[in-house]
Formats: sequence, C-alpha cells, structure tokens
Amino acid sequence: MSITVVGSVALDTVYTPFGQAQDALGGSASYFATAASLYDQVNLVGVVGEDFPQEHLEFLGTRSATLDSLQVAQGKTFRWGGRYALDMNSRETLFTELGVFAEFKPSLPEAYGHAEVVFLANIHPALQLDVLQQMERGGVQLRALDTMNLWIETTRDALTEVLRKVDVVMIAEEEARQYANTPNLQAAARTILDLGPKILVIKQGPYGSLLIGADGSYFAAPSFPIEEVRDPTGAGDAFAGGFLGYLATRLHAGHELAPADYQRGLVHGNILGSFACEDFSVGRLKEVTAEDIAARYQQCVSFTHFEAEWSSGTVAATA
Amino acid sequence: MSITVVGSVALDTVYTPFGQAQDALGGSASYFATAASLYDQVNLVGVVGEDFPQEHLEFLGTRSATLDSLQVAQGKTFRWGGRYALDMNSRETLFTELGVFAEFKPSLPEAYGHAEVVFLANIHPALQLDVLQQMERGGVQLRALDTMNLWIETTRDALTEVLRKVDVVMIAEEEARQYANTPNLQAAARTILDLGPKILVIKQGPYGSLLIGADGSYFAAPSFPIEEVRDPTGAGDAFAGGFLGYLATRLHAGHELAPADYQRGLVHGNILGSFACEDFSVGRLKEVTAEDIAARYQQCVSFTHFEAEWSSGTVAATA
Repeated sequence: MSITVVGSVALDTVYTPFGQAQDALGGSASYFATAASLYDQVNLVGVVGEDFPQEHLEFLGTRSATLDSLQVAQGKTFRWGGRYALDMNSRETLFTELGVFAEFKPSLPEAYGHAEVVFLANIHPALQLDVLQQMERGGVQLRALDTMNLWIETTRDALTEVLRKVDVVMIAEEEARQYANTPNLQAAARTILDLGPKILVIKQGPYGSLLIGADGSYFAAPSFPIEEVRDPTGAGDAFAGGFLGYLATRLHAGHELAPADYQRGLVHGNILGSFACEDFSVGRLKEVTAEDIAARYQQCVSFTHFEAEWSSGTVAATA
Repeated sequence: MSITVVGSVALDTVYTPFGQAQDALGGSASYFATAASLYDQVNLVGVVGEDFPQEHLEFLGTRSATLDSLQVAQGKTFRWGGRYALDMNSRETLFTELGVFAEFKPSLPEAYGHAEVVFLANIHPALQLDVLQQMERGGVQLRALDTMNLWIETTRDALTEVLRKVDVVMIAEEEARQYANTPNLQAAARTILDLGPKILVIKQGPYGSLLIGADGSYFAAPSFPIEEVRDPTGAGDAFAGGFLGYLATRLHAGHELAPADYQRGLVHGNILGSFACEDFSVGRLKEVTAEDIAARYQQCVSFTHFEAEWSSGTVAATA
C-alpha cells in the first residue's frame, strides 16, 4: 500500500538572480518522493550513475521504502543546468547530459504493483506505458502522469496512447494548449479529457492550479503566496507529490475519491509546490513538517473563502 | 450618492483571431460605467468629439445619471486600434489618435463631490490629482485609481503623488512590478501600500485578481472561466466597475467597509470582467442582469471553496 513514482533522479546546476546551486539533488522523482513521502510510503523507481553522491542516496533512502528500484548503472548521473530570468518564471536550459538516464528501462518489483497510486513523472511516453503495463499485475487504483513539450513535439502518438490509459493528467497550462493545438484553455481541457482521463490538473506556475473533471466539474486554487522565490525548479513535481500524496491517504483509509478529495488534494499540491520554491534543490522541502502543511492549509482557506451571500437585492440591474 | 468615474470615452477598432470591430464604443469610462451602473448611480466625466455617434451618446445616457459632464468638444473623438495575438493575452497597438482627449480638463459639477466613490481611470496622474482636489469639496468616502506603464515611465513623480492620496490602487501585475522595480510581487505590493493606500488590487488578467491590504491581509480570487474570449479590451475597467460598484452599494446602505466587503467586491470585479470579454465593445456587458451576476457569484463560491478540514493526522510527517 503505497505510491510508486517513476522519473528522473538528477544532479542540477541552477543559477538564479539570487544565488546558485551546483550538482544539487534534482530530478522529478526526487522532488516528488520528498513531497509525497510526507503523506504515505513512496517507492522510487529511477536510475543514477556511479558518480551519484552517497549523501543523496542516503537522503532518498529516507523518502523511499527501499532503494532496490533505484538502479545504479555504469556511467554518469543525469545532469541538468539552467538559468532563471529576473522574474523567476522563464528559464534557459544551459545543458542536458542524459548519462545513464538515456538507457533507463524501469523494472518494477512485483510488490510495487500493489501501490494504490502511480505517478509517471515526465519521461518518454513509451516508458510511461511500459510502467503502466507492469503495474496492471497489481491493484493500482490511481494512475497519474506528467509530460512536457518535448514529447508533445516528438512522440505525440505514444503520448496520446498513454493519455488514454491514465486517470489523472497533470500538465502545465501552455502544454495543454500545445497538445490540443488551441489557445482556448477550456477547449484544450476537453480535448484531453475526451481521451479518457477522469481528472485534468492544469499547473499555472505562480498563479496556482485548476482541476477540471470529465464530468464537467471545475475548481481553481490560487497559489500560496511566498515572500521569496529562491528556485522554482521541481515545484511541479513537489505539487504532484502533495496532490497524489494526499489522495493516497484517502485511498489508504478506504475512501472512494470524491470531488472534495481532489479539491483538497489540489490545495496540498499548491502548498508543497510553494515549499519547493523557497530554497534550491529539496532544501526547504525536506524540512517540512505536518504542522507546516496544516498551517498553510488554514491560510489557503482564509485567503480563498468569501461570504457566499452578497445581498443581490442591492444590484440595480438597469439592463 | 453615487460613483463618479473620470476616464476616456473612445472609438475602438479591434482585431482578434476570431473577429473584428470598427469604431466601437470603447474607453475606460465607458466600460466602467456600463459595469458599475448595474450597482449604483454613475456620474461619467469625460470628453468626446463632434464625430461621436448619437447611438453611443444615448447608450451612455442610460448608464450615467446625466451626460452634463461628458463634454462634446470641437475635434475628433479619441480613437484606439489594436490587434490581439492568438492567445488573446498579448496585443499590439495599431494606432492611438488622442483627438479631443489630448486637451481633456475634467471639470466636476458641485454635485459630483457628493459621490461616495470616485474611480480615476487610467489618465494622466496630474488630471487624477486635479479631480481628487475637486472631489474634496464633497464627502467622497472611497478614492480608487488605475494607471499604466506610460505614466510609470513618463510621469512617475506625479503618479507617486496621487498614489499617496487614494484609498484603493487597482493595477496590473506587471505594472506593480514595474513601479516598484522588483520582480517580487509581494515586495512590489508593500512598496505601493507604504505610500498610503489601504487596499491594493492586483489584476492578473486571465488568472484573476489579488487583494492585498496595508494591514497585511491577503485574498485571491481566480478568474471566472469563460468558454470563449472574444475581446478582452476593457475587462480591467469592467472589473473596476464590478468591484467599486459593489462597494458603493455597501457604503450606500450605511456600512463601513469590512474585509468581507472587499473580498466580495473582488469576486464581483472578476465576474464583470468575464462578461466584458465575451463580446466586442460593451456588447455582452450591456445585456448583463442582476440574475446573471448572481448565477456567476454562486459558481465562484462553488469553484473556489473547499473543505476547511483535511484530517491532518493522515500526514506521516517523516521529516
């Protein structure tokens, strides 16, 4: 009973106008596991090279049930370098050295099939599909994926195939528009949901996130405001960790997922995403406690809820 | 007892990927008055040329208590032309012909000083200041302004002077950052609020709006989702009309404005802004009824409120 994540484990070099980090722990699976392990047991599936620092291995060992499925392969760990613009929203990729990640073939231990939740982080859609097939041996209840512009542009058919097989699609706003080839976000959402997913989560970066259901439901959660964004790298994966981590606790407790669960999950996602931005790498995220999450959850209630009555008789309605 | 708005009345030519309008009713005061008059009596202060179509005059006459303060001057009406990109967020200005607006000197009838609310739409800060001085003869209770990048760049000192004298600043996100010369929105908000306003409203276009108080309060309202954006021109002024229009009804009814009033006002602003986007010019806005507003208000409640309890005991808190 747990959450299985398949994604990258990387060494990131990040420059922002306010600081930098070199060969820091990065990768979608690292951020996801650091966040989701606050909620439920995580199985991390990934690959690193022989150069991967022991301290990072030890940290990931505290966030994953075992490290058996974190392969250590001959060669170098995936390295990514990026530089953020002054507004911290746009970034330039300085280098991408795939290393051992280029040949990554996820192989899941039998036990991982019993996870309630699987998160297919941003990897090649063919690998995502392969993982889903391996999971079908077990009793997975919630299948979620993330993707990126590269796969939309280069492996669209494979991406479409895996979109048809998941329950939840988590995607950045501009990528939803790109996949659906429309500037209209509502139309883009319908295009994706028409493929089969029950839930579409649109990530809007500093603006928050949207939850759009195949049943026509709609929910919006503004981002948690933070004083200082030090490094937004990994915020989307930490968001996924908070969202799916919270849903896993509900499944774990024997609930069928209801709209209210997905809504609260979205808020948890925003909260974990906000922590991810507050330091380089998983610097802030790894210190987060249940009390920290609870405090931000209550703040989210207070800055989004308003009085449902507004005395409509006061509107003159001249029209 | 009413709302006084001082701003532009224009003839707009707008091209979008989905249609176009030529010499349609535009200008900040037109959009504002069309929206705010749904809530309370509006006094429109502006200027048009002799070429201003009679049908537009007649329409504005239905949205303003009188047209005595809409001067008809010798010359041509302010004309603006713009073309929107496919995403409907960025636009290119094709032409700006100020006409009689270049020599606009607002002169307020004595009676207008008794308005509870004044909205200084996006005009030269020196004119905004002059209007404020004219208003001080009366009993104005709420002074609000909008501005734009042009005034930040060319008349910064005058803008700062008028920022010191208003209660509410309504400003686009990128302009708040520009004025405060920081990419950090929270820091930009403090810079502006430190000048004296009690309330800062940050307009985030398709993402909604934020309400930040000098007392440290914070509230976020996601935008109302619409199926088809036909023309976003004037959405910010319609937003101001909904926001201040609602607040005027509260003042009118003898209430002191409380945080809950500003919050509900922000939701009304988003709603009126959404109507403005649904057609060219004031095409949709002029048909809006109190029932239309009430229906969207309830939808806003349902897509933003979530359960305040989330059974925090389920978080494992491994950290």
